[in-house]
Amino acid sequence: MSAAGAFSLDQLMELAGLACAQTVAKVYNKEKYPRVLVCCGPGNQGGDGLVAARHLSQFGYAPVLFMPKPGGKDIYKRLQTQCANMSISLLPNEDPIVSLSTSLQSTDVILDAIFGFSFKPPVRAPFDAVLPLIAQSGKPIVSVDIPSGWDVEKGKISVATKEVSSAGQVGGDKEFEGLDPDVLISLTGPKLGVKQFAGRHFLGGRFVSKAMEEKFELNLPEYPGYEQIVELPRPSSL
Amino acid sequence: MSAAGAFSLDQLMELAGLACAQTVAKVYNKEKYPRVLVCCGPGNQGGDGLVAARHLSQFGYAPVLFMPKPGGKDIYKRLQTQCANMSISLLPNEDPIVSLSTSLQSTDVILDAIFGFSFKPPVRAPFDAVLPLIAQSGKPIVSVDIPSGWDVEKGKISVATKEVSSAGQVGGDKEFEGLDPDVLISLTGPKLGVKQFAGRHFLGGRFVSKAMEEKFELNLPEYPGYEQIVELPRPSSL
Repeated sequence: MSAAGAFSLDQLMELAGLACAQTVAKVYNKEKYPRVLVCCGPGNQGGDGLVAARHLSQFGYAPVLFMPKPGGKDIYKRLQTQCANMSISLLPNEDPIVSLSTSLQSTDVILDAIFGFSFKPPVRAPFDAVLPLIAQSGKPIVSVDIPSGWDVEKGKISVATKEVSSAGQVGGDKEFEGLDPDVLISLTGPKLGVKQFAGRHFLGGRFVSKAMEEKFELNLPEYPGYEQIVELPRPSSL
Repeated sequence: MSAAGAFSLDQLMELAGLACAQTVAKVYNKEKYPRVLVCCGPGNQGGDGLVAARHLSQFGYAPVLFMPKPGGKDIYKRLQTQCANMSISLLPNEDPIVSLSTSLQSTDVILDAIFGFSFKPPVRAPFDAVLPLIAQSGKPIVSVDIPSGWDVEKGKISVATKEVSSAGQVGGDKEFEGLDPDVLISLTGPKLGVKQFAGRHFLGGRFVSKAMEEKFELNLPEYPGYEQIVELPRPSSL
């Protein structure tokens, strides 16, 4: 997500993160899926995750933050403080893989805000163990913009990761093809790489002007009423 | 609206303005009420109005901005630029009262983002003619946080304004008791002064933490699902 026009990153991230939280809430109701593990990468997508965690808490969920490499930007730190002020739990980072494997057992749904559209291999530690561990958990996954480990244009690619036991013991090398989310929330517009994504697909980030939409031939679907998210048709029905 | 905790004004204003736009959209559908005149004061409430105008444009309305005294803050200027980038019309300020009186004839609903909770008399020019002119128009009014001209604690008070003809000719002095909106959108919590407000009343600004809510005994109602606004019961049914 980049700051476009006269928008500040604070504004764009707020609307993007709200759309992510609303997508989780749309698909996974808080009675059955209260415990949302919000996994944040170190970049702007991690910021979207932090905003989403805060809104999920407002919606009555019990989000838990997993942030093994907190971002260094000022906005990231402010978003972290906002979550702390709302008493949102944060997994300890002393041994993040063990923390994650323990937490996954009591998680109902995972929000994947780890890597965004600018991701390029290699997958660095600890994410080379985080991604396979999340994939192995079998828990429902909602990915932000592009599933973590996918290429923004090519979609699924093979990346080098690690073997991980369900107890969080990291072993040898393992080829991995990225997360397989159940739900995807594309921001501003779907990226080329998710063309073949077959799960439930939402669009958020309702701040693109008509002029921009026409200039880049985005052909965005119409959002209903004052909604901040819209569900897209499945590829088979296109 | 003040920046609280680690929130930036950009974030709070974005959520507040979104709630204002959603309230307009909830009550006045865009097929019957497409032309929303968004009246902005020079302070933070004017900023909420600018954000609302942008979202209303996204929702498919045709907002027009009336901003006879644009605010001087950087955020105000950025919000103005964002509206201009979305091709949102702005009434000319050469003779604001004549502009306003002409525009009111082709307006379906007015969003009153003129004065906020920090308003204290006197009502300065040109707002001493703007307020009576809006009141005389008979058009539906949605007020933000506190109807313009009301005192945040005392509610309706008498303020000195001007006589204005429907053509926008300003005359002698006139006592005035503030706008009488059909709809009110309170931000974060209803203010003491609107206790007797009898129209449709919404609450927005869903960013108050449980801890803050308890500390200030706000007794806020529960928002439904992932909504950013909630309608409050009328005083008679309390």
